Amino acid sequence: MTQAESRVLCPALRNRIMSADEAAALIRKGDNIGMSGFTGAGYPKAVPGALARRIHQANSEGDRFKVGIWTGASTAPELDGALASVAGVEMRLPYQSDPVCRQRINAGEMEYIDIHLSHVAQFVWFGFLGHLDVAVVEVTGITEDGQLIPSTSIGNNKTWLDEADKIILEVNSAQDMNLLGMHDIYYGTQRPPHRKPIPLVAPGDRIGQPTFRVNPDKIVAIVETHAADRNTQFSAPDENSRRIAGHILDFLQHEVKKGRLPPELLPLQSGVGNIANAVLAGLEDGPFENLTAYTEVLQDGMLQLLKSGKLAFASATAVSLSTDALKEFRENLAFYRERILLRPQEISNHPEVIRRLGIIAMNGMIEADIYGNVNSTHVMGSQIMNGIGGSGDFARNAYLSMFMTPSTAKGGAISCIVPMVPHVDHTEHDVQVVVTEQGLADLRGLSPKQRAETIIERCAHPDFKPALRDYYRRALKGSPGQHTPHLLDEAFSWHLRALAGRGM
Amino acid sequence: MTQAESRVLCPALRNRIMSADEAAALIRKGDNIGMSGFTGAGYPKAVPGALARRIHQANSEGDRFKVGIWTGASTAPELDGALASVAGVEMRLPYQSDPVCRQRINAGEMEYIDIHLSHVAQFVWFGFLGHLDVAVVEVTGITEDGQLIPSTSIGNNKTWLDEADKIILEVNSAQDMNLLGMHDIYYGTQRPPHRKPIPLVAPGDRIGQPTFRVNPDKIVAIVETHAADRNTQFSAPDENSRRIAGHILDFLQHEVKKGRLPPELLPLQSGVGNIANAVLAGLEDGPFENLTAYTEVLQDGMLQLLKSGKLAFASATAVSLSTDALKEFRENLAFYRERILLRPQEISNHPEVIRRLGIIAMNGMIEADIYGNVNSTHVMGSQIMNGIGGSGDFARNAYLSMFMTPSTAKGGAISCIVPMVPHVDHTEHDVQVVVTEQGLADLRGLSPKQRAETIIERCAHPDFKPALRDYYRRALKGSPGQHTPHLLDEAFSWHLRALAGRGM
Repeated sequence: MTQAESRVLCPALRNRIMSADEAAALIRKGDNIGMSGFTGAGYPKAVPGALARRIHQANSEGDRFKVGIWTGASTAPELDGALASVAGVEMRLPYQSDPVCRQRINAGEMEYIDIHLSHVAQFVWFGFLGHLDVAVVEVTGITEDGQLIPSTSIGNNKTWLDEADKIILEVNSAQDMNLLGMHDIYYGTQRPPHRKPIPLVAPGDRIGQPTFRVNPDKIVAIVETHAADRNTQFSAPDENSRRIAGHILDFLQHEVKKGRLPPELLPLQSGVGNIANAVLAGLEDGPFENLTAYTEVLQDGMLQLLKSGKLAFASATAVSLSTDALKEFRENLAFYRERILLRPQEISNHPEVIRRLGIIAMNGMIEADIYGNVNSTHVMGSQIMNGIGGSGDFARNAYLSMFMTPSTAKGGAISCIVPMVPHVDHTEHDVQVVVTEQGLADLRGLSPKQRAETIIERCAHPDFKPALRDYYRRALKGSPGQHTPHLLDEAFSWHLRALAGRGM
Repeated sequence: MTQAESRVLCPALRNRIMSADEAAALIRKGDNIGMSGFTGAGYPKAVPGALARRIHQANSEGDRFKVGIWTGASTAPELDGALASVAGVEMRLPYQSDPVCRQRINAGEMEYIDIHLSHVAQFVWFGFLGHLDVAVVEVTGITEDGQLIPSTSIGNNKTWLDEADKIILEVNSAQDMNLLGMHDIYYGTQRPPHRKPIPLVAPGDRIGQPTFRVNPDKIVAIVETHAADRNTQFSAPDENSRRIAGHILDFLQHEVKKGRLPPELLPLQSGVGNIANAVLAGLEDGPFENLTAYTEVLQDGMLQLLKSGKLAFASATAVSLSTDALKEFRENLAFYRERILLRPQEISNHPEVIRRLGIIAMNGMIEADIYGNVNSTHVMGSQIMNGIGGSGDFARNAYLSMFMTPSTAKGGAISCIVPMVPHVDHTEHDVQVVVTEQGLADLRGLSPKQRAETIIERCAHPDFKPALRDYYRRALKGSPGQHTPHLLDEAFSWHLRALAGRGM
């Protein structure tokens, strides 16, 4: 790449440009590395692979080389896959969704901490997670005065840049320079006791600046790349997703009628994936206008809502689009830059802001139990799937907290409504609405027993209803207490049957 | 009581003065009633008993008469005990600790919803819990212009007064008129999307007014009482409590040394009970000066710290003292009024404020599992003890979230560290420190397996360590996944043995 084409416009920094291998050589064994990346957007494309090669080389020479990898959220095969493949990760946090990574964790070969996304940045400032040695952050460009133009995600990048001893930047010329102006980096956070209110009262409020500040002395390497983000492909909503979306839209309309929601609703938060996308597609045809979103990730469905004008504004921390949607996004960046703000994840997920704005939170789950406890993370109580991500930040502090799943999994062999979940991520105190394709259970104002009756009758699949009723009826008789009736000797019998390969 | 002595100074309201029986007659079958009261402080002393008599009469005549009872938190035998005794409560929320009430709930004769204390007021404004028909609120006096001087707790009283159709006031002349000025009633809360930042940046900040506003047209009855709050007696800290306190004090000193806490610490939140009181007693002899508290309940231990000058300021929603401490409090009210503010519980427990101030949260629990999930509410997974109270509000949003219990219960027959808790109130994502008399487990930055090893070795009682190690070791081999190793067929075997009367 010639200097004329380079996006490293700051003259003093041009001498730090080097290859990914040279940059990776600056990382030491045992370092904790804060990398950019959130939902497959804005992660470094070259240095992780170079680091993986270096680790592989060291390991093959009998030199055990591992590092700690901290990110915003999930990344891509080039990062999590590459480093997990060479067994290079000692401790991973705060979220992952990579198949190789997951396999390593569940084989007991890699440690993982699954942390509320709003907690990560402050835990690092507080010194709770150990020392941050290196930041590896993708940016779109470096301005003449050394400011960094963010990429397609913000995540924890501000914190990594502020806290790391050494900074490695990847300047990715495949990211659009017109992203400049779509970011809002808030520099008002402090450690207690010096914290002030966050001055954000609507999803579109700008409270920060469009670029990252950085101490240029800490920049030890700049690697120029030209590579696209991981593509996220969405399948067209299936029948179950459409039915779940339908129940949610009916419920929201009912809440507006009852005066419990304004006609334009309240800011939407939507988890990642096909069901979430189906709900958004449903809003496209629904009666609501002038919607807003205050969420983590802007996916295809929300882009479509922005385009059609149904959605007036979206705040997020990452833009994660399919190839087609990305094309639309880039061709109309000026339009979207007026309607999208990307923020640090401690702000996109901040309990203060979520409670103030009164978010409508919609998140997927693995399973719920009859009393409304939700498992979002563990298969059969012990195997991690992905992680809690931001679902807890939103569920606890939202105006309305909804969890959704098809009522069965494994082709109908397993029920996603169970007597007791073997891992709890969202307690009975934090779950207001449970939705499956069978129906919607509104748990607000219900005691545990009333919740059980509602969840079984509204949400369970007909194939499993009789057995759930039977468990609940026998628990009502045989449980030592009648507040939350349970038979502890068979509460997990459904999971044990599934583990034995006998369905539930 | 003559008019000269009366504390109903507003002339227009004097004609609403009546007996408790007359006032109770204004309550209808099926009404939802918002009553004052938080930790046995400031609850109505006369109307609940009169209502219980009325209900008993109706029930004995075959007329099923039940009401919904909403409070701040726990009350006293005159309220919860009286109404539960006559089976007068259909639905109780958000917290109780009354033996008769608990017995009814666990017998399946009374519904109960156990709600985060910071959520209650807003759920009522949002209309999520149904209609609030009547407020029954104790006050210290009524000013000439009709403002209400709060009593020894605020709880949800502002919300009850604002939202109820009808208001019954109890004016309790046993409460000290010099309480005037100790309260800070914030009227800045709104429903979304109209919410603004809460302008509170230190425990002593005044953001509201000293009295409740009330629409006088809604006041249907005023009952004059002269009765003390329930006394809370504290036993002198036992050996276990002193050892738990010692571990916590050592830990806090260590955190100051490491630069993770300032020398004056951060605002303290302390749960209710003897262990909490022991920790506070420990602070009395500790090295920390100029402490502050931002908590729910001001108990004896904190009063002592204020008196000695160790504690510079305490914010709470209730003052709940023993007889001796109450004497000290009343004799020096002018001194304490400069150092104590009582706030509505949505402010004392507000996630926005708790996160901003950076609270050190210390709460009791029933049991923890080896992975750091905490059960605060259920015995053997099904019987309610009291409720989650504010522990979740604080744990989730605190700077440091600690949970404490003796390592065993039932004279050593039962371990309070178990393989898996059969009810989760605080998930692995929200628990940073577990403390027993055996030691303190600092879980920050640890993966599930690292947490298990730490909790077993630091916190479990020596009598149960071998069996916990054995479970964990076998789970490491036999679990379907190695992220959070569990054997689902024996995860509750400890509880099942206890239920069978065979210890654990």
